[in-house]
Amino acid sequence: MQFASRISRLEDKSMLDAFEIMETEDMISFSAGTPAPDTYPIDHIAEAFDRVLKQEGRQALSYCPTSGYKKLREIIAGRMAEKFKTTYTSDEIIITGGSQQGLDMSGMLFVNKGDVVLFETPSYLGAVNALRAHEAELVAIPTDREGIETEPLKHALDRYGERVKMVYVIPDFQNPTGRSWSDARRRHFMELMSHYDVPVIEDAAYSELSFDKELRKPLAWYDKKGQVIYIGTFSKTFCPGLRVAWLCARKEIMEKYLVLKNASDLSSPSISQRQMAYYLEHYSLDDHISEICAVYKRRCDVMIAALREHFPTQVTYEAPRGGLFIWATLPEGKDARELLLRAAEHKVAFMPGSSFYPSAAKNNEFRLNFSNVSEENVKKGIAILGGVINTYLQES
Amino acid sequence: MQFASRISRLEDKSMLDAFEIMETEDMISFSAGTPAPDTYPIDHIAEAFDRVLKQEGRQALSYCPTSGYKKLREIIAGRMAEKFKTTYTSDEIIITGGSQQGLDMSGMLFVNKGDVVLFETPSYLGAVNALRAHEAELVAIPTDREGIETEPLKHALDRYGERVKMVYVIPDFQNPTGRSWSDARRRHFMELMSHYDVPVIEDAAYSELSFDKELRKPLAWYDKKGQVIYIGTFSKTFCPGLRVAWLCARKEIMEKYLVLKNASDLSSPSISQRQMAYYLEHYSLDDHISEICAVYKRRCDVMIAALREHFPTQVTYEAPRGGLFIWATLPEGKDARELLLRAAEHKVAFMPGSSFYPSAAKNNEFRLNFSNVSEENVKKGIAILGGVINTYLQES
Repeated sequence: MQFASRISRLEDKSMLDAFEIMETEDMISFSAGTPAPDTYPIDHIAEAFDRVLKQEGRQALSYCPTSGYKKLREIIAGRMAEKFKTTYTSDEIIITGGSQQGLDMSGMLFVNKGDVVLFETPSYLGAVNALRAHEAELVAIPTDREGIETEPLKHALDRYGERVKMVYVIPDFQNPTGRSWSDARRRHFMELMSHYDVPVIEDAAYSELSFDKELRKPLAWYDKKGQVIYIGTFSKTFCPGLRVAWLCARKEIMEKYLVLKNASDLSSPSISQRQMAYYLEHYSLDDHISEICAVYKRRCDVMIAALREHFPTQVTYEAPRGGLFIWATLPEGKDARELLLRAAEHKVAFMPGSSFYPSAAKNNEFRLNFSNVSEENVKKGIAILGGVINTYLQES
Repeated sequence: MQFASRISRLEDKSMLDAFEIMETEDMISFSAGTPAPDTYPIDHIAEAFDRVLKQEGRQALSYCPTSGYKKLREIIAGRMAEKFKTTYTSDEIIITGGSQQGLDMSGMLFVNKGDVVLFETPSYLGAVNALRAHEAELVAIPTDREGIETEPLKHALDRYGERVKMVYVIPDFQNPTGRSWSDARRRHFMELMSHYDVPVIEDAAYSELSFDKELRKPLAWYDKKGQVIYIGTFSKTFCPGLRVAWLCARKEIMEKYLVLKNASDLSSPSISQRQMAYYLEHYSLDDHISEICAVYKRRCDVMIAALREHFPTQVTYEAPRGGLFIWATLPEGKDARELLLRAAEHKVAFMPGSSFYPSAAKNNEFRLNFSNVSEENVKKGIAILGGVINTYLQES
């Protein structure tokens, strides 16, 4: 049987494997990209499901408009205006099946086979996969501590010209590096982009997971032309199992997303959207986020302390101010995939960095998740990993 | 801003409009394609959600494997084996967001821009949209009362040769015609297809909605080569708001669907899959289906009686043996879209037939849904529609 040409682009199965292969119980895994399940407000969610089914069961179990449940879109618009000073209306928001669907639909909307997508690098493998599935040529743009580097970005925009159909970035507590762009870089980036008729996909999955009170303004706030497509989700701030996320775009672009969403799956589940709206109306998601950020900050602090204690000084890393990840770099020439094989023998796992590169992968980096591991296991796991690294680095 | 070329193929927005525009309260609408919300077993569903959250809340609110919740896939495999004598294992089943996502992923898997998809005609507009989004050239194959016509099918297979990447069919209680293929036609069709290396997408959305005890064998049962991709759903037999459907394919094909599902939305919601599994384990879906089929059969009988009473004899139709629809044909030269405009003035709606044609649309047909309208409103609505048709046909 013959398959479409896109299939051959999807050879990196590490994301799929991470979803299919559940870790064994005795493994300390720093490889997740998820919130901690022990933080889910299960009782409140159970109550929300019950109330929704009793009060509006027939609607909740029927088809829902393709754009999503109106009240939920209104609440999201209001929340974003309050937190981020954005001006999206509920009609400029569509509910998607996780942010991943927003990325997939963005590929469908903007990318023909062979078009160029510029990628902040390293970056989220799910976005890489979604855009590879639409046969984009992914061009890596490097980042420094302030964010995406605007010189190489400008160079690529000019070099590839009309072939560039999208720029994909994660400005807040980026996956995998944990870094946030500075305000100056955000401003500079949007000023540069305003000279090009190219959409900017702003993946805001981690924006609210800040260890500090103040949240940074999203790129959407700096956007004067309506070229930012903003993708938000409840998967990291609440729980991923409901698959409730959203995408914001100005009206003439949103009309096209609606057509694509309708062709993709008609609509997201009515029931989970209504329970999410119920939760947002009757409980405080902000309080919940404060609580989980406190937990994650403690786990992060414990991890940084453990890294200082157990990792050799040749391994570098930075303490993040939010998000779920610490990004570590081995000396040049060392390979994190080899390190993972050795660590797994000692029942410790993490994500090797090469999967986060859309092209020209570097192999000496790796990502450590702290949100989903208890403080005790953070200490234990990092001590073990430190030992494995020491042995590995002592080999010539 | 520049959009991908696929967007221009998605000009028929009648499906999107049907989802976005909710009908007004005083309209009698025969245009739905949905089960009756008053049949949903809301109490049982509420109990299932509650139990799942209390017993396995953390897993139910976390990410789920891309293939779907294992226990649900096992139950589906067992149910299909029992009802339809199929031999799919749980690993040959993937959970999708409605059948629509199965159709979208099938387009992604098999179709490059410009490839040919052969379509039983008339057929489901959602499938037309999903395949147009992948820039397939849709070629209409006519049907008679026995099913797809194999002579024109063979002709198209030979004429388009290697460009043909898929045949899409709905053998049971077809949308929009309500017809089911005869056993002889199923056998003959699969015998013909076995000479070609082309996948057959069998959309089985209505298969279990039979007014008779006996269910027909699906095409998958006749398939000796593993070329059938079987798409099933709980949207019509249970409720659509959970968006739980499934797709069956042999292992080497399934591996590729998994990669695409992962790139599309990582996985379907864990919570709805687990509540569906709980329902299937603790209640009888078969009893529920028997109950709704009895309701639908009564509504169908009432509609047929009303059609006999109120429609002029120039309008033809057949009484279906299951499913949700009656397909009616006006005399040549008359236009169902014009009829709809007139009927809407009298607060009656239906689906004009032209949207069900992937190409070379006929305009003198229309689809009437009986599942989602009370017996009283069936009588009332058909009487009104009969009056409007009489007036329309009397004009020259």
